[in-house]
Amino acid sequence: MPLAQIDLDRTLMEQKKTEISEGIQKAFVDALDSPPDDKFHIFRPHDDGELIADPGFWGVERRSMLAIQVTMVHRYPVDAKLEMYRQIAKNLEELGIRHQDIFISIVENGFEDWYPGKIRGE
Amino acid sequence: MPLAQIDLDRTLMEQKKTEISEGIQKAFVDALDSPPDDKFHIFRPHDDGELIADPGFWGVERRSMLAIQVTMVHRYPVDAKLEMYRQIAKNLEELGIRHQDIFISIVENGFEDWYPGKIRGE
Amino acid sequence: MPLAQIDLDRTLMEQKKTEISEGIQKAFVDALDSPPDDKFHIFRPHDDGELIADPGFWGVERRSMLAIQVTMVHRYPVDAKLEMYRQIAKNLEELGIRHQDIFISIVENGFEDWYPGKIRGE
Repeated sequence: MPLAQIDLDRTLMEQKKTEISEGIQKAFVDALDSPPDDKFHIFRPHDDGELIADPGFWGVERRSMLAIQVTMVHRYPVDAKLEMYRQIAKNLEELGIRHQDIFISIVENGFEDWYPGKIRGE
Repeated sequence: MPLAQIDLDRTLMEQKKTEISEGIQKAFVDALDSPPDDKFHIFRPHDDGELIADPGFWGVERRSMLAIQVTMVHRYPVDAKLEMYRQIAKNLEELGIRHQDIFISIVENGFEDWYPGKIRGE
Repeated sequence: MPLAQIDLDRTLMEQKKTEISEGIQKAFVDALDSPPDDKFHIFRPHDDGELIADPGFWGVERRSMLAIQVTMVHRYPVDAKLEMYRQIAKNLEELGIRHQDIFISIVENGFEDWYPGKIRGE
């Protein structure tokens, strides 16, 4: 159960929400071996000025920010995380979103930290 | 100090925000032994299509999603977390919210990771 | 890469977003030794009633809530976190925001849990 929270420009969301969601989900499937139907995404549209990212930190030339926060179980090796970043960047670039403008952070928890509409095993 | 972040349908929020907040808080009190006044909730209303949840993952028949993210100190046994899920589901079902549509995730931190308007002990 | 998520009153945001962002960033620099250009902030404006905080928990007299969630790498000693709280409170009080109304929580992750527009080292 990765949970993806996506904070992004309102216009971009209105135009490409479905495709962005599919691109993120495909990356979860390809990089993390998530089941395709393990899909829980929260989109939060933003108006000008609400998403603040430095235009040059780490030598990356940013023009805007699409922030993806992934909450997922602590079980994936570093390589799987890097592959997830690559896949998300690739899939969203196909939609015209520059990889430089993508910002991803991961927070981990445990198997017992999820309730997707029922208790596990009940 | 559990912090609850609730992302939900805008109309549902406008109709039942107070009751949902009370139902979540009661679950914190009953399942986690939180003090009743240890109450910090953030509601984020959403328009159609912003909350995406698979309609069948884990065999749960979902029609929508009310997502509750709980940040809390790493101190509770698994049983307390499960009881918290049960209590939240029960309390929100009394408001007409299907338990299948509730999605809860927990992220933990430490005692030193909170500033509720003052430094602990100062 | 601390990521700051700020949930606050809409009017306050419209009036003082830039100054609040600068105050938080200055605290990261002064307390955590963050580079000044390591700046990633998400502002989420709220209407009345969406931010719920107990008016007296921990003996703090609250009138409203400006919630700051900081995601950052697990590497800082407790003293640096406390200093971060003090600096944020001080910098925002200079903008007329009562420290009692500030609520900060920290969630930690690892160095591999960030993608700020490129893979580290590539």
